[in-house]
Amino acid sequence: MKMMDAIQYANKQREKNLDELKEFLALPTISTLSEHRADVQRGAEWVAEKLRGMGMENIAIMPTGDGAGQPLVYAEWLHASDAPTILVYGHLDVQPVDPLNEWLTNPFEPTIVGDWIYARGASDMKAQTLAVMKALEALLKTDSLRVNIKVIVEGEEEVGSPNFGAFLREYKEKLKCDVALNCDSQMASQDLPSIVYGLRGLCYFEIWVYGPAQDLHSGLFGGTIHNPAQVLCDLISGMHDAAGRVTLPHFYDEVRELSETERAELARLPITDEGWANAAGVSALWGEKNFSVVERAGARPTLEVNGLYAGFIGEGSKTVLPAKAMAKISTRLVPNQRPEKIKQQLEDYLRAHAPDTVRWTVEQFAAGEPVLLNRDSRYVRAAQDALQETFGVAPVFQLLGWSVPVTNSLNDELGVDVVVMGFGLADDGTHGPNEHFYLPNFYRGIESYIRFFQNCEEKK
Amino acid sequence: MKMMDAIQYANKQREKNLDELKEFLALPTISTLSEHRADVQRGAEWVAEKLRGMGMENIAIMPTGDGAGQPLVYAEWLHASDAPTILVYGHLDVQPVDPLNEWLTNPFEPTIVGDWIYARGASDMKAQTLAVMKALEALLKTDSLRVNIKVIVEGEEEVGSPNFGAFLREYKEKLKCDVALNCDSQMASQDLPSIVYGLRGLCYFEIWVYGPAQDLHSGLFGGTIHNPAQVLCDLISGMHDAAGRVTLPHFYDEVRELSETERAELARLPITDEGWANAAGVSALWGEKNFSVVERAGARPTLEVNGLYAGFIGEGSKTVLPAKAMAKISTRLVPNQRPEKIKQQLEDYLRAHAPDTVRWTVEQFAAGEPVLLNRDSRYVRAAQDALQETFGVAPVFQLLGWSVPVTNSLNDELGVDVVVMGFGLADDGTHGPNEHFYLPNFYRGIESYIRFFQNCEEKK
Repeated sequence: MKMMDAIQYANKQREKNLDELKEFLALPTISTLSEHRADVQRGAEWVAEKLRGMGMENIAIMPTGDGAGQPLVYAEWLHASDAPTILVYGHLDVQPVDPLNEWLTNPFEPTIVGDWIYARGASDMKAQTLAVMKALEALLKTDSLRVNIKVIVEGEEEVGSPNFGAFLREYKEKLKCDVALNCDSQMASQDLPSIVYGLRGLCYFEIWVYGPAQDLHSGLFGGTIHNPAQVLCDLISGMHDAAGRVTLPHFYDEVRELSETERAELARLPITDEGWANAAGVSALWGEKNFSVVERAGARPTLEVNGLYAGFIGEGSKTVLPAKAMAKISTRLVPNQRPEKIKQQLEDYLRAHAPDTVRWTVEQFAAGEPVLLNRDSRYVRAAQDALQETFGVAPVFQLLGWSVPVTNSLNDELGVDVVVMGFGLADDGTHGPNEHFYLPNFYRGIESYIRFFQNCEEKK
Repeated sequence: MKMMDAIQYANKQREKNLDELKEFLALPTISTLSEHRADVQRGAEWVAEKLRGMGMENIAIMPTGDGAGQPLVYAEWLHASDAPTILVYGHLDVQPVDPLNEWLTNPFEPTIVGDWIYARGASDMKAQTLAVMKALEALLKTDSLRVNIKVIVEGEEEVGSPNFGAFLREYKEKLKCDVALNCDSQMASQDLPSIVYGLRGLCYFEIWVYGPAQDLHSGLFGGTIHNPAQVLCDLISGMHDAAGRVTLPHFYDEVRELSETERAELARLPITDEGWANAAGVSALWGEKNFSVVERAGARPTLEVNGLYAGFIGEGSKTVLPAKAMAKISTRLVPNQRPEKIKQQLEDYLRAHAPDTVRWTVEQFAAGEPVLLNRDSRYVRAAQDALQETFGVAPVFQLLGWSVPVTNSLNDELGVDVVVMGFGLADDGTHGPNEHFYLPNFYRGIESYIRFFQNCEEKK
């Protein structure tokens, strides 16, 4: 049976595949920092080279945003006539590494400790991008690929995929497919796979509060003018009420409530308050009253402070009364909230609550839609079976807290269902220091993707 | 009459005195930067040479901090038997010059534009240190000095006078005096002299709020754990009430209330809300209800945010849920608040208001006493009369918002009254670019100091 051949092939390649994972992780493909632009390009070349080597065709490193965006790697294999076409999505870029001093290893010198590999991008998402590539390689090398494949590996997911929608629109014909597979996802726990059917949307803002014309001496002017850092704290403090709810006007108006069935399903997830608190490294949880931690993390909208800055933050003391203060805040949105309304709600809030003693500005950096996917298709069943066969346990259906705007884009622009199946874990430290990935799931990921591609054709 | 001789002498020396001021200002005596250590030493030698030339005696350049500190110049003239001894304080060091690109002239090439001289240290405080020296020179050269004089010119005021207290203690006998004159001060406005009788104390703190063990992905954990940046904002927001009062428990318990006389006197200061708002570059003032801007700036305690930091503050967006958040805050204290109680009050506040979901720490960087000087002594009357005679207008009594630790040291360590009389202006740009000094007040300063020394003896 061909499928076993491919899995056997992949298993024999484990050492080589791990070496390639290390190679991939060693590339500092930080898309948010312009000084790493050449590294992202190098990452794209590395991916393209691998795709070429395994027998994928029409490999192209394509510019995005008229060349202003980061490049995207495309490849295809279209020799399975009458079989469905699957568009595979991954990304090769990673988050910045600060705070660097909190890393125990060099973020771009992949380091294996026990079953874990430590490196920036290990979990988000180079291990998974490479896993799906290695699944395709095993299928191609064993002559057992029975579906058509189009691969996209993006270079700017971590900046919010600003050019991805336009890219899909421009190449709509070229990218025509029956289903999309988004590998940028995670499992419910180390041995419990999941299929994600909902993702939160994201709106990201930078707020500045301006007070005096320049930094002032706090002894001279303290107590006589409104300190913009204090005003900013007042404003942020007021953005939640005592029940943990966001106070932006009309924020909850369009929120889709969970059905009883969904709440019961979500309760199956092996996530306890205690386990979640341990994963976060906190002694107690917090959040919106009357919702479980799983619901709060996936099915309820949030507003978080991502950054704060004002005045003097060096060592020691400086008695400055700062001229301005800044906060980065972001909201996670759930169906059926509309990202385009959130900025208005934030501005309405600031207009209502900011005092006349200061000026303020709001800049928006991201506006991603929440998404709710079809759970009832042959492709979802193919994924369910692949995961059950690989892990020996039925996968759970999960709502994820974060945003993968590309899922929306694939869904909306190409008009196809998206299967979201990945192998990271919640406590992998993505976006933070000491990011890591559980290596056994790199290999089980490869196997799951092999089985998925086979199931798509075989289990109609 | 001898006094007129001394004033006439000083007036004849104006050109030479201005040349010497330029010489003094040309020395880059930046005490905060170790690469300028030799310049501070050169400044001390220059001052010592001038004191020797005018007839002061027992000139010494004395090391401080066992040689680790910057030198201090001492001189004395003790030939007025049965007359009081006055300890004169000034400093010869200056602040760094950055941001250098905002200077319109070279900070160490003194430049005269109209009635103003531009140079680093012009207002803080070389013009005043030289003015009091020139007053002594005029009195000595005209054989009309009738009080005993001890002079200290410090070399590290701008780093917070770290060794000054110990110096006073070590040389307590040598420095024995009846009153101290601190020349490091300013006028109410260009033509309105002032005597400062109160300075605020300072307590400076760095607060950290700790949440998760490390930075987390805000999509993954957002809405489920307490964001330390949000908690910090809540805590800071709660530190003031709606009336602009500080809410630390017992913060106001020992605050000395202003008498009606003092309030009436402070109301004489030529400071309007509009003028103050213009100076700060704000459209509207803010502060504790029921107190004027002059009262809020000098006679009321404050709490200000000096710095804020959490999470990601670089360009663009990073969806991090920060592990910790930091604020630098400082309180300005007025008589009779005790600095040693403020940390306790802050900790009590945090203990009462910080939620169990976070940990916090408080570190203290400064604890300076507020000072209230005796306003009712023959020496204060001598200063009042000297200023009235020189400027033709009664000086105002002023409470300054900031802290001048040497005033406390002179008061505490030597156990004598301190008269604070200087000639800078609030908008001289001290510590900033384009520092300047109003030259007519250099000459009126010399005259005022001459009259003061004479009045100390003559108007018992």
